[in-house]
Amino acid sequence: MIVTFLGLLAGTLTTISFLPQVIKTWKSKSAKDVSLEMFLIFCSGVFLWIVYGILVGDTPVIVANFVTFILASTILWLKLKYR
Amino acid sequence: MIVTFLGLLAGTLTTISFLPQVIKTWKSKSAKDVSLEMFLIFCSGVFLWIVYGILVGDTPVIVANFVTFILASTILWLKLKYR
Repeated sequence: MIVTFLGLLAGTLTTISFLPQVIKTWKSKSAKDVSLEMFLIFCSGVFLWIVYGILVGDTPVIVANFVTFILASTILWLKLKYR
Repeated sequence: MIVTFLGLLAGTLTTISFLPQVIKTWKSKSAKDVSLEMFLIFCSGVFLWIVYGILVGDTPVIVANFVTFILASTILWLKLKYR
């Protein structure tokens, strides 16, 4: 019970952590110090997590990675836009 | 079999993705555009993933998150160092 809560809390934190970066880059219109390679590789990995989640039928994996994918790909888009 | 490979590939990608950011920030000595809040929340979440992995006895979760924690906390340290 407390272990499941801990897992959900961990997943929530690692997922929502990308939101402050989205807001920061959106507001500053600057992404010079953000690594393009990091977000290219990260988005590819998160996409594969979604596929994996679908194949094994794991809803929490699908949901957490879907939200993460939206946020991380937004950072990737802002990075390509502002450099 | 192919599903397990996909999961391992996904985990490897999301883990090693932080390495280019470590190298970029280390070389440029600039982290102005990197969100402090993102890496504070992310490192907390990854730390909880390690605790979760230990409690449920899931070695891949422990190993992947341990490596991610080393890399992400290095970015956090560089962010605090270079701002």
